Amino acid sequence: MSFIAFSEQYKPTLEACLQKTLHFELSDPRYLLANAMRYSVMAPGKRIRPLLALAVFQLFSSDIDRILPLACAVELIHVYSLIHDDLPAMDDDDYRRGQLTCHKKFGEDIAVLAGDTLNTYAFELLAQELPRYYSLEKTLHVIREFAQALGILGMAGGQVLDLKSPEAERDVDYLETTHRLKTGVLLKTCIVLPAYLEDASATERAYLAQFGEHLGMLFQIVDDILDVVGSQDELGKSIQKDIAQNKLTYVSYWGLDKARSLAQAEADAALVCLDAIRPRSSAVLEDLIGYLTQRTS
Amino acid sequence: MSFIAFSEQYKPTLEACLQKTLHFELSDPRYLLANAMRYSVMAPGKRIRPLLALAVFQLFSSDIDRILPLACAVELIHVYSLIHDDLPAMDDDDYRRGQLTCHKKFGEDIAVLAGDTLNTYAFELLAQELPRYYSLEKTLHVIREFAQALGILGMAGGQVLDLKSPEAERDVDYLETTHRLKTGVLLKTCIVLPAYLEDASATERAYLAQFGEHLGMLFQIVDDILDVVGSQDELGKSIQKDIAQNKLTYVSYWGLDKARSLAQAEADAALVCLDAIRPRSSAVLEDLIGYLTQRTS
Repeated sequence: MSFIAFSEQYKPTLEACLQKTLHFELSDPRYLLANAMRYSVMAPGKRIRPLLALAVFQLFSSDIDRILPLACAVELIHVYSLIHDDLPAMDDDDYRRGQLTCHKKFGEDIAVLAGDTLNTYAFELLAQELPRYYSLEKTLHVIREFAQALGILGMAGGQVLDLKSPEAERDVDYLETTHRLKTGVLLKTCIVLPAYLEDASATERAYLAQFGEHLGMLFQIVDDILDVVGSQDELGKSIQKDIAQNKLTYVSYWGLDKARSLAQAEADAALVCLDAIRPRSSAVLEDLIGYLTQRTS
Repeated sequence: MSFIAFSEQYKPTLEACLQKTLHFELSDPRYLLANAMRYSVMAPGKRIRPLLALAVFQLFSSDIDRILPLACAVELIHVYSLIHDDLPAMDDDDYRRGQLTCHKKFGEDIAVLAGDTLNTYAFELLAQELPRYYSLEKTLHVIREFAQALGILGMAGGQVLDLKSPEAERDVDYLETTHRLKTGVLLKTCIVLPAYLEDASATERAYLAQFGEHLGMLFQIVDDILDVVGSQDELGKSIQKDIAQNKLTYVSYWGLDKARSLAQAEADAALVCLDAIRPRSSAVLEDLIGYLTQRTS
């Protein structure tokens, strides 16, 4: 199955689960916060992360109810990071997923709180729902891995590296570390944790971890390329921000052609990892590699 | 023992534990984030919440190593909420705990990320350390309770009520709900969870939960009073902000005298709850009630 067909098949389930998760009946001003959370989470996103978790999960099991809490939690976390990333003091973006950013729509105060609340709510969801399907030990492992993936040694650390890249340290190591932490760690979590929960073998988990690293790098290099050559309409967010903010990116560092060939190298390497876990049937994941390489949004 | 003597005895242990928790060796710009987290967490705070957790814990057990992770986690969460609360888009404060606020010192971008990182780091700490002393079931229960206490039905919800109190809804119920959610829920967590972890009886837990509610209310009413009559030097933060921001507070609603008598009523009610758990020896907690009623900082 192609990734697009897979996405069309499972997105409604994911969206319904997210919608249900964010259902609060509040009559006081907290409905503002609830609305802001829903507005940002239910915006038309590609849902790459939860779909990825689902696709990896299906290498091992077909009972997708089991993986929905993790898939939703990772999307809540991703959206929290987008809301805070878009704030005026951070990347200062007006558009995201084709609509006004959270702070443009609801004000900065509500946007800060909406991000904060989605962050903790993801942990609540994991702690509440995972034990319905998995052992307490597995549940705790997932919570620990998520918390680590978001911290100073993960996503938040990557955001600092991205915001504060000093001229003197702009080398290839710095660039790779930034991208790995900012995007890669959470993306890898979507791949490694479903495999862990479904008792994948140590070898399978090792190859999938490598697959996650290459996919994360591919994703971010393409992001850098799209910031330069993409269309704001298709991307649903502002473009050419990286240049305006003098950011260190694969394109600013290597130029467009070399960035493209590096993306292709990551795509090839990711494919090799999937080959290594045959006979697990990974057609959707294979197609996802092509989809991410060629994406225009 | 008086609460002040108790505080003098245990604060060094808590501070050392916080310091150790926030030890990261980072040479790249992530040290900025680490520094911001440490700067805000290690500021001279009263540490009411972790000390409270410790004092309740000691009703049941003397092996304080067991409660340090929870005590530190609650302080990390409290500091995260202060950092975000102080942001220009929120309460817009320049001073906190006698020093410049995090965003004044490190910039808004780093302050947002420092709050975010402390938030997730608290969960990492709980997930990592609690299982060393308690069952996985208890660990997960604590994580769930914390996540709930921080969400839209807890602290973040209280902050929205506080920020957006509409003139038309400014009644006593609104005021109580705001205070209960904004301050009370997390404070109550510091009381209820140590008792839960140490297998307090259902009756003891019920009385301690009530104690927590009264203490939370007492704490917040006194906060409202100090915003009007306190000294910036003693408080270490800006005063008379509530009036400037036209906030709904116990003082703006009831006036100073009535607010003081309501605080005393909460103090009395809290004391009754402690009487009910005798023969547990709660001298420190009894003294804490007086300390919180009379505090000037």
